[in-house]
Order: sequence, then C-alpha cells, then structure tokens
Amino acid sequence: MKNFLHLPELDDTTLRDLLARARAIEKTPVSDALKGRVLGLVFLNPSLRTLSSFQAGMAQLGGSSFVITPGQGTWALEMQDGVVMDGATAEHVREAVPVLCQYADLLGVRCFAGGKDLALDLTEPVLGAFARHATKPLINMESAIDHPCQALADWKTLDDLEIPARGGRFTLSWAWHPKALPLAVPTAALSMAARRGMDVTVLRPEGYALPREVMALAHSEAARSGGSVRETSDRHEGLDGAHVLYAKSWQAPACYGDSEKEALLRAPLREWCVAEDWFRPAQKDAVFMHCLPVRRNVKVKDEVLDGPRSRVIRQAGNRLHAQKAVLLSLLGVR
Amino acid sequence: MKNFLHLPELDDTTLRDLLARARAIEKTPVSDALKGRVLGLVFLNPSLRTLSSFQAGMAQLGGSSFVITPGQGTWALEMQDGVVMDGATAEHVREAVPVLCQYADLLGVRCFAGGKDLALDLTEPVLGAFARHATKPLINMESAIDHPCQALADWKTLDDLEIPARGGRFTLSWAWHPKALPLAVPTAALSMAARRGMDVTVLRPEGYALPREVMALAHSEAARSGGSVRETSDRHEGLDGAHVLYAKSWQAPACYGDSEKEALLRAPLREWCVAEDWFRPAQKDAVFMHCLPVRRNVKVKDEVLDGPRSRVIRQAGNRLHAQKAVLLSLLGVR
Amino acid sequence: MKNFLHLPELDDTTLRDLLARARAIEKTPVSDALKGRVLGLVFLNPSLRTLSSFQAGMAQLGGSSFVITPGQGTWALEMQDGVVMDGATAEHVREAVPVLCQYADLLGVRCFAGGKDLALDLTEPVLGAFARHATKPLINMESAIDHPCQALADWKTLDDLEIPARGGRFTLSWAWHPKALPLAVPTAALSMAARRGMDVTVLRPEGYALPREVMALAHSEAARSGGSVRETSDRHEGLDGAHVLYAKSWQAPACYGDSEKEALLRAPLREWCVAEDWFRPAQKDAVFMHCLPVRRNVKVKDEVLDGPRSRVIRQAGNRLHAQKAVLLSLLGVR
Repeated sequence: MKNFLHLPELDDTTLRDLLARARAIEKTPVSDALKGRVLGLVFLNPSLRTLSSFQAGMAQLGGSSFVITPGQGTWALEMQDGVVMDGATAEHVREAVPVLCQYADLLGVRCFAGGKDLALDLTEPVLGAFARHATKPLINMESAIDHPCQALADWKTLDDLEIPARGGRFTLSWAWHPKALPLAVPTAALSMAARRGMDVTVLRPEGYALPREVMALAHSEAARSGGSVRETSDRHEGLDGAHVLYAKSWQAPACYGDSEKEALLRAPLREWCVAEDWFRPAQKDAVFMHCLPVRRNVKVKDEVLDGPRSRVIRQAGNRLHAQKAVLLSLLGVR
Repeated sequence: MKNFLHLPELDDTTLRDLLARARAIEKTPVSDALKGRVLGLVFLNPSLRTLSSFQAGMAQLGGSSFVITPGQGTWALEMQDGVVMDGATAEHVREAVPVLCQYADLLGVRCFAGGKDLALDLTEPVLGAFARHATKPLINMESAIDHPCQALADWKTLDDLEIPARGGRFTLSWAWHPKALPLAVPTAALSMAARRGMDVTVLRPEGYALPREVMALAHSEAARSGGSVRETSDRHEGLDGAHVLYAKSWQAPACYGDSEKEALLRAPLREWCVAEDWFRPAQKDAVFMHCLPVRRNVKVKDEVLDGPRSRVIRQAGNRLHAQKAVLLSLLGVR
Repeated sequence: MKNFLHLPELDDTTLRDLLARARAIEKTPVSDALKGRVLGLVFLNPSLRTLSSFQAGMAQLGGSSFVITPGQGTWALEMQDGVVMDGATAEHVREAVPVLCQYADLLGVRCFAGGKDLALDLTEPVLGAFARHATKPLINMESAIDHPCQALADWKTLDDLEIPARGGRFTLSWAWHPKALPLAVPTAALSMAARRGMDVTVLRPEGYALPREVMALAHSEAARSGGSVRETSDRHEGLDGAHVLYAKSWQAPACYGDSEKEALLRAPLREWCVAEDWFRPAQKDAVFMHCLPVRRNVKVKDEVLDGPRSRVIRQAGNRLHAQKAVLLSLLGVR
C-alpha cells in the first residue's frame, strides 16, 4: 500500500490485513515501532477526532507528528496549476507538499469539498494535487468525497459488534442539519458497507438521492463482494430488518453550491431526526452509528445517543486503532 | 487521587505527597516514567504557562500530548444537556470527552467562567460536564472558580522560600485591571494559603469582597489547618507584618455579568496598582507573588516586578514541577 | 555558540562546524541525541517550513517541542519597557521569556519587522527583547532584518551543488510582489553569499537599493572572506556569468512604512517576474533559488520553478538539516 486515499482502491488482502492489525493494536496499543518517524498533518478544515487520534496514535507507536493549518498560522495554499498568484494564496501546493515530504516520513491531509461544483468535487481536486506532489505516503483524513479512515474504523466496529457481513442489513439514513453538508462520509459509509458484502439501503427524502457517481461506486463495491444496494424514501421500508442505522446529513446534489435553494428544500425535513421509534421495523437489537460530531436533537435525539443502541463512541475509538494500522502499513513496518 | 480538580478535595497525605514529588522532580526533571502515555489538553481559553508547561512536562517524563482548541481548528462544543443543537455548537461534550478519553491516558481542561451568572459559575458547569463524561483522570487547568495547578505551584513556592506555614502572613490583594476578571485565581490562592495554615488577609476596596461561598471555603480550609482568614479594605492593616503580597484582580461580585456597571465601580480604583511603598507595613523581606500574565504598571509597577521582592518567575517555574507530580500521581506511577 | 541570532556573529570555525554537522545529519537523520530535551517555539508570524522543520528536527533527534502563538491561543505580548499595559497586550516579554525558559531547554522566536520605522526595525527590537530576557539558548527563526536559519540552509545548498565559493557568482534579484515585504531574507542571503566569499550582485530596480546598513554589512562580510559585492539595476549586467539567481521581493526603503506610496513605486515593475530568458547572460547551468513561500507567475514563472534550474525544494530540505546542527550545537551535544 503506497497511499491510503480511498478504500475501494485496496484489494481484499490489504483490507483484511489492515483490519487484523487494527484488532491487534487495540490489544497492544503501545510500542516503539515508529521510533524516529514523523507524521505531518495538514488540516485545511476543522477536526477533533482526526487531529487527536493521529497525534495520539503516532506517539503511542513511539513516533511524533506536527500539525499545519494553512490560513491559520501558515500561509493560505494555492491548489490550481498555472495561476498568477497575486491574490490571497501565498504558497502553492507544488512547493508545500514536496517540502513537507522532506521533513516528514508520511503526510495526512484533510481537505473538505469546495461545495460549489459537484463535478469538480467528484474529481477530488485538492487530494489529487497533494497526491501528485507527495514524495512520501499520503493519508486521506477526509476529502471532498471520501473519508477512508472513518470507513475503516466503521468496518472494524461492525466486526467488533459481530454484525453479519453477508446478510447484514445496513441502512444509511439522511438526517436533517442546519447546514448543507459534504458527501464524503455518506459516500465512504455506503461503499464500505457494500464492500463488506452487506445489504445496504440508502434512506433519504425526495431530492436527496446521492449522486449517480456515488451510487455507481457503491453498486460496483457490492458486486465485488456479493452485497446489494438499494434506495428508498420510505422509512419503514428503509429500516425493515436493519442491523445498523447509520445517520448522516448531506446536501441535495441538485442544489449543490446553491445554499439558499438547498435550504428551501431542506426546510420541511426537520422530522428527519433519528428517534427511538425509527427502529420499530429494524432488528430488535439494531445499533445506531454516526461518524461524529453530531448535533443532538437535530440529527438524532438524546434518547438514541444516550440509549443502548448507540455505538458512536466505539466508532470514534476505532479511529485510533484503524489509523495506527494504516500508519504501520504505509511505513512498511511488519 | 482519581482527578485533580480542586485542592480542597485532597486529603493532607495526598497534598504532602504531591509537594514532595514536585520537589524531587525539580531535581531530576527527565525520566521515562510516562513512556507511551498521552495527555489530551483541551483549551477553551488562552494560555501560555499551562499550554507550554504541560506539554514540556509530559515530554520530559517520556510521554506526549496533543492540544485541542474548540472553536479554533476544532468544532465549538456544547456543554448543556437536552439542547437542540441547531446553533453555533457542532459537538456535545457528551461525545467529545468520552471520545478523547479513548485516545488519551488522561485529560486536562481549561474552562474559564461564563461571567454572566455568578451562582451558575460557582457550580462549575463546564468542568462538571467534563468530569461527568470523562472515563480517564481529569485535570483542572483553570476553571470558573478554581486554578488548582496554580495553587499547588504557589504552595511549593512558599515552601521553597521557607515562608512559615503556621504564623506566616499571606495577603491577597485586589489590583486594578482594565477588564472584569474571573474569580478562579483569587479563590485558589486564598484557600491554598488558608489550607497551608497561614494567617490570610484579603485586602480589597469596598465592593470587591469575594463571594460568600468563596470566603466560606477559605474559612473551612483555615479551620482544617489551624490558619485564619480576615478581610479589610485598609491597606496598612491589610499588609501589616505580611510575608507575602499576592496580587490579583477580580470583578465585583455584586456587578457580576454587568460589565458596564462593574467598570463604573472600578474606574476610581486605578491607584490599586501595587508599588514598592505598599510594602512599608510588611515584613522587611516580604515577597511579591502573582500568577501571571500581569499587566505592568496597571496591576503592579515595574519597580516591584523588576525589584528583589518579585517571585513571579519562580511561581511559574513551579507550575512545571507541580504538574509533573500531578501527572505521575494520576497515572499511578510511583 | 550561546545563541543563534545572526550568521555574521559566528566565527569561521563555528560556521564550518555547523555546515559539517548539517551534512552528517542529512546522512544519519535519526538519533537519541536530544532525548528529554524540549524546544519552545514562539511564532509571532505565520510559518510552514520553520514550524514543521523545527518540530520534525527535534523529534528525529529524540527530543520534543511546543508551539506558542501569541494573540492566537496565547495572550498578546508587550515588547516595550516601561509601558502602562492597559491596552491590547496582556503579558510582557520580560515575564513570558524567562517563564518559557524554565520549561524549555532552548527557545526559537519568529518576529517579523514592524514595518513602520526602518531605523527601529534595523535595531531588531523584538529579537533583542527576547535575547535580553532569555536564560536559555535562543534561535532566530526570522526576525526584522535577518533569517539565519535560511542563510545556513542556503549555504549548505550552495555547497551541495558545488557552486564555487571563491569566484562563484551569486545574484540576488528583486522580484515583484503584491505586498511590501520585509528585508530579512534579502539581508540574510546577501550577507551569507558575501561571507561565503562569492562575487555577489544585487540586481534591483531604481528605488529598491537595500538600506545603507544592509549593504555595509554585506561589504564587511565580503571583506572578511575575500568576496565582493556590487549593485545594478541592469538585468544583463546583473546576471552576467551568474551561477545562482536568488530571487526575493522587498519593499523600497525610501517608502518604508508608507504602503500606499510604496505600491505606486512598485506598480510599474510587474515585469520583474523571473523567467527563463533572464538566465541568458548567466552560466549555462545557472540555478534558481528562493526561500519560499513563492507566489508563482508573480515573482517567478512556472517555467523556472518547474524547470531544471530550480533548487527551491532542496533549499527547504536543508532547513531541516541545518537547524538540527544548530540545535545540537546550542545544547552542547557533540
């Protein structure tokens, strides 16, 4: 594994190896495996779990990390080629990335979607620029359209909970949120569950179908693994027999980049706040998952988050173990 | 010791042990005692000493730390239960704290007073929320109404200077400041000196008596140790025979949350700027203490800070030693 | 070597030793030489290379570092003596620096020019204040008028490239930039090349001659080493036979502190953007150097940065090796 950019790029052996390592690391979290190694973390967007778990993870493996936040203590970065840089950006990714790769043994980057142009965001322009110019292994710490660290942690969580891969029912449900949110986590969760071989349902209101490209990826991952993917806007149908309800908000692809129009479409959908009664058609012991941060009583009610179904803390805990497996693997440590 | 939240919660043995450890660590500052251990630092407010001394301390003990600053690189945190989170806060302390506790071996939090409602601040709402949801030891890095790391360092400073516990006279004096400041440091210094068994005087202008609850705590600490606590607004009386003048500004409790009214009350008090002549009634070699940061020539004159009485640098130095003792103790390292 | 503030302060033996160490460290980058040691980094201005390379460097040598950014997470610092601090600054450098020196084994500070008063900036008021109050070794991470870490890395780069010291031709060229920039890097690069014994030319448009004091320093460094320094505004003359074109923008000294007047002077000079055809009079294999960050197609064209002449990435890489040599030397590690 040269980089860790998208789960669908990994073959089954690599994926199985990462998950096995993550389980082993959970049992033996501290070592000197990465002594003298340095991880450079570039955050173009906010973070809590990613920032702290990558730093903690490197430290627990005997290594170290530094954090760069362009535009806040560091120059704003230009991503586009051929540009005359007489505006706000002071440094080009063509210099910044090779420079950081001389200081660090590997690099992580968080680069949310631009949110203006869906077709552009689907090409992963910023992650792509980092990947093109990196001379060391690169980790996607959430990009325009993917969040593979979350997906790997979620896969481990499903394994931990012994939720069946074949025959397990995974429902990704849209939820209301005061802002138009990116597509990275729903895309990652959906294709992860499909790749795990689960029967996946995307439950979302009219107008919130995920983009064709995202659904196509999920279908191809399902085909690879023997899983299935379907969509519905009917809550009962969407949760029928579900083992997992994975909630996330995302913006309507048809209004991408037009937040006013999107807000109008979203306005009547506040009832899309996950409550205990959503689970009626699901498996009796169905669990609730969410990547965090979550807005309480907006996307999901306290009764669910504080009740016995919630696995959100465990999901976040698995970020640490999964990412340590990625770090070791990228640095070629057996 | 499970957490380090408030000095008055600690029994004499624990306190004595922390001070002895701090002295020992000062002599042997570097070790591998905390190898592989990670400290998570959450700063809801600015810091210089705390931020740098906790990071340096962990590193010198062979461990590591990460820093989280909600609202600046990390989501703004919601502290209140039951809230519909459709405003500015994106993550609830109910998730954030348990998540961080999965990455770190212990947590520190800085959470200044809200400054609107004294009764509320006296209940330590934010520190309390962190403590309720923490699954690892928690350190109070200054809260609404206490600063135990400072208090422990100050106690060590008094010991270093061989200022008598029984019979030592400790004057906590109010000082002018352009802003209405919290009550954490005066509360911590006052109850620390009382607990040490000293004869403590609170010297403050009319209208600046500390809240009843704060004075009651100090009296109970004095009763526990054989010390005494009194109050005066007369400078000569307040400093008569003093071994220590500990200066700090704080807002008038009667105007709590009303900064305009408070500013009117404070306006005529600019002469409350500690000068060399304040020490006339004190012991000949009386010392000046302050927790820093200090506004020069506003709270205290250059002649005092740059003169032979000042111990402010030593106080800050003892933060490092005291906190390392706390870290070792909380992590059960003998 | 007690501090690392300005290259001209170092004698030849010290300089040669630093360069030899930097070469050795490049080959053996990881060690335990600074185990248990802590570097405090104070950033009063933004950074990418400095922030990341100092942290990575300490970690690779087995040590650790912490970062303080006054005004962003830490109190704004007062630099001036005797001031009544009732304004924006909450902590004086007279306290902050001795305090940090109790936590760290050495300190680095970045403090760009005030940019209002050239005569004042030439006295290095902030770096001077830090140096006066530091009780541990101090590193200049770019000050008002110098950038010795860059200069040392650039010297190593010239050595790596086997560009002759005696007889080597080094052209420091002004370049256009949308903002009035400080004099630190041109001063550092100029006096470094002169000290290395090179024949140095400052190529700049009318009105952009470097201040008398800066040129005097360069001349004295050249006299010390057998090099030479001259100035021209003629591009052909300036680059005739050059081995190195080192580009940098700086503000016109005559308009120092008057950005509107400076902008008028600068407006017609946009053609001062380094292009491949600039190299016609130079050596056939002449190289392009720049300290980064660089605004592409403003200071230099893509064709140069992406072409075979550019050594900017190597320069930045040498920051790491050079600074590690400085750290070891200041901490007395052989």
